[in-house]
Amino acid sequence: MTADIIPLPRKKPTLDPMLALTAQGMNSVNAVILDRMQSEIPLIPALAGHLISGGGKRLRPMLTLAGAELVGYSGTRHHKLAAAVEFIHTATLLHDDVVDGSDLRRGKAAANIIFGNPATVLVGDFLFSRSFELMTEDGSLKVLKILSGASAIIAEGEVDQLTAQRQIETSEERYLNIIGAKTAALFAAASRIAAVVAECDEAQETALDDYGRNLGVAFQLVDDAIDYDSEAAEMGKDQGDDFREGKMTLPVILAFSRGTEEERKFWKSAISGVKSDDEALQQAIHLIDKYDAVEATRERARHFADRAVDAISIFPDSKARHAMAEAAHFAVARGY
Amino acid sequence: MTADIIPLPRKKPTLDPMLALTAQGMNSVNAVILDRMQSEIPLIPALAGHLISGGGKRLRPMLTLAGAELVGYSGTRHHKLAAAVEFIHTATLLHDDVVDGSDLRRGKAAANIIFGNPATVLVGDFLFSRSFELMTEDGSLKVLKILSGASAIIAEGEVDQLTAQRQIETSEERYLNIIGAKTAALFAAASRIAAVVAECDEAQETALDDYGRNLGVAFQLVDDAIDYDSEAAEMGKDQGDDFREGKMTLPVILAFSRGTEEERKFWKSAISGVKSDDEALQQAIHLIDKYDAVEATRERARHFADRAVDAISIFPDSKARHAMAEAAHFAVARGY
Repeated sequence: MTADIIPLPRKKPTLDPMLALTAQGMNSVNAVILDRMQSEIPLIPALAGHLISGGGKRLRPMLTLAGAELVGYSGTRHHKLAAAVEFIHTATLLHDDVVDGSDLRRGKAAANIIFGNPATVLVGDFLFSRSFELMTEDGSLKVLKILSGASAIIAEGEVDQLTAQRQIETSEERYLNIIGAKTAALFAAASRIAAVVAECDEAQETALDDYGRNLGVAFQLVDDAIDYDSEAAEMGKDQGDDFREGKMTLPVILAFSRGTEEERKFWKSAISGVKSDDEALQQAIHLIDKYDAVEATRERARHFADRAVDAISIFPDSKARHAMAEAAHFAVARGY
Repeated sequence: MTADIIPLPRKKPTLDPMLALTAQGMNSVNAVILDRMQSEIPLIPALAGHLISGGGKRLRPMLTLAGAELVGYSGTRHHKLAAAVEFIHTATLLHDDVVDGSDLRRGKAAANIIFGNPATVLVGDFLFSRSFELMTEDGSLKVLKILSGASAIIAEGEVDQLTAQRQIETSEERYLNIIGAKTAALFAAASRIAAVVAECDEAQETALDDYGRNLGVAFQLVDDAIDYDSEAAEMGKDQGDDFREGKMTLPVILAFSRGTEEERKFWKSAISGVKSDDEALQQAIHLIDKYDAVEATRERARHFADRAVDAISIFPDSKARHAMAEAAHFAVARGY
């Protein structure tokens, strides 16, 4: 009997293997993105470029590329489609900037602050249209179905989130439905279309969809946790934005449900907007800390990341599978 | 030799023959529209319904239906596609309401006034996504190409219009480019897809495209004239809106270029927004009247309507062709 090998504690998971796996492909995707955001109307590439060159991770197109590696696809069709996915995402970010009225995006001034709401809405529409042009050029009706369906679901999720805004009674279930729609649907679609271009069987297609969907939920959960994590190293936007906007996210839902009657009164007043100033934000962070709501949110994220990893375990072991698994762990650990 | 028949002066052209021609088909289109604007998120059908049931003429889907009649298409595929066209149009109207900040739309409170900018932007996105779902269900890549291309061009036209806003030096050429993109592109696409589903030859497809495009230009010209026509019987929005927003339309372009130095100073100050109150609006209407700029705009519209009518003269004489020709004349005469 040989001794069991006890694995050494792993170093902190990173996105590096995923970045390395997709680096070459991302060059092609970025070339398509740059090429197709052009227009004779100079304001369009100026505004789109502000966001597109603004240092986003381009996670979603990366998922399409990683998925293609995972299933051994050797063509190039997925480059255009990955760019289409990123355009859909960019369009929703531009519209989100208008919807949220946030001043910062990825640490820079939001597009609408520089270019105004009207242009920001319209350039979002332009990129959205361009994404469908790209898909149409590729010509797969199955991909078109997946991505048009995902786009409708994203919009539904965003409207649902708007309806839940300033509603302290929003449940964890409803919140999960919202982020499943507004975030995870595009992660799922981005992954799934890799299986479609590679003409995989239904089980493999579903596996990639499940991977992307669970990863998307994990990412959004941690994004929402970071907004209340005073120790967060990485910040995608102004910390406290969710709070000021009365956006219902899991840290708040948990601190509210775990809190005392007195504390619930505070949450009600804060989320409804009666008192959501800096002092209230400090109190919110204090209560979220008191009930370990950031850590609990990360724990929830870990669950979904585990499901993402298991979903792709039907594929043979490979560098791609490892990179995708580590990306899921990274989703949970980032911001620490 | 027989005597020439001198035609009696025609009665005022109406949309009635077009309405009669497409009445039955529009019932099917309206059923698709109502069915596909539904969502589990109640705010979506509430907001979409506000605009969709708000008394629009649904001209664009009507063009698809009329075109199908013209070419003798006997299937039903065009019903879904006509609904997709109307969804694209509705999405752009919702986004326009946010972009323009206009209080009224079709004589009712604009969607964003009742539901707010955020929901209005997002429901626009939802309808836009739904339109691509409908096209994908139909499955014609050619139609998808035409309508995704038109959507991108619409957005470009809207951004271009935004750039020209408050710029008194905007030329008639640039204005024609803008309305060609923001309005006529969808009219053209709506007409053209009728030929695509009917599998017409290239010349017929182009003829329908030309019909729609020229009709669209004529419609927009007259829309823009009505905004300064004190005798206009029909008003699509608050009269004077274009003026207050500093939107450059042909009546202003003509009054400016035909005006004296003194008058040009007035236009510069008014369009730049320095002085665009009610008194300035009255002065604007006076100058536009002085230079017959409304009538001249209608004359331009007549030119495009004539081109629309001639474009479909390659088709044999039919009730459909007559209805479409009268619609073009109606486009010019309406608002009188």
